[in-house]
Amino acid sequence: MTQPHYLPEDCSIARTLGLVGERWTMLVLREAFRGVRRFDDIRANTGAPRQVLSARLSVLVEHGVLRREPYQVLGQRARHEYRLTRKGMDLYPVLVSLMRWGDRYLADSDGPPVELTHAGCGAPVDVTLRCADGHLLDSAREVRPVER
Amino acid sequence: MTQPHYLPEDCSIARTLGLVGERWTMLVLREAFRGVRRFDDIRANTGAPRQVLSARLSVLVEHGVLRREPYQVLGQRARHEYRLTRKGMDLYPVLVSLMRWGDRYLADSDGPPVELTHAGCGAPVDVTLRCADGHLLDSAREVRPVER
Repeated sequence: MTQPHYLPEDCSIARTLGLVGERWTMLVLREAFRGVRRFDDIRANTGAPRQVLSARLSVLVEHGVLRREPYQVLGQRARHEYRLTRKGMDLYPVLVSLMRWGDRYLADSDGPPVELTHAGCGAPVDVTLRCADGHLLDSAREVRPVER
Repeated sequence: MTQPHYLPEDCSIARTLGLVGERWTMLVLREAFRGVRRFDDIRANTGAPRQVLSARLSVLVEHGVLRREPYQVLGQRARHEYRLTRKGMDLYPVLVSLMRWGDRYLADSDGPPVELTHAGCGAPVDVTLRCADGHLLDSAREVRPVER
């Protein structure tokens, strides 16, 4: 049953995980989506060790997921803040799908700490599978993988 | 800016990653969604070392993401195969979102190895954000997180 393109080096899932699958990296991205852009704030909100955080940010910048923007607080040295690129913004469904599953299956008895709502109407937001013709898919059973 | 429920131990994203974020685990789940249920087949398709795979499967069973079902090939000892539970099935959007991002940004020049299509109509499948009132959301900017 081995098919070469399912080996980790060719698989899109494995490649994505190789770049952003690490736990601190995903929490850095969570902060970026919350609009938290500065090193010390990211560190405080994630609890990531300083050197780990620095390394993770560098990898994300190197791969074009985040970009550095200079800023300066009066009387302090110039620093950088970190902003999502388009490539980074496109990771949002990954974070939401991880979050929603955790909300459903791993939350404490008093429920998940954060709910995502549609800014336009206030209804709760979830990830769904949808085809280019506009059909919503209820489960993996409605998906047919086509291999090249 | 520190809010206690954003620390990794309370965050639904971090909790989900803690259970399924490891690379081999996610590849095991990929195989499960492809209908690959037997240890040796999963091993061949992922390239996971035997002991690693065995440990990852045990964790997934322990947490109710997979369940063991006995089977026996004539003349061989009884074995187990691994099937997705409902809890496991609900991880599908996580895998698809990881895959689609990798397809878009990390694929080789000849394109991604697998395309997901809607079994009903053949159109390509993607993950989208949608609210309970049926609105499709184009980006994270349309989402308002509400903290408890």
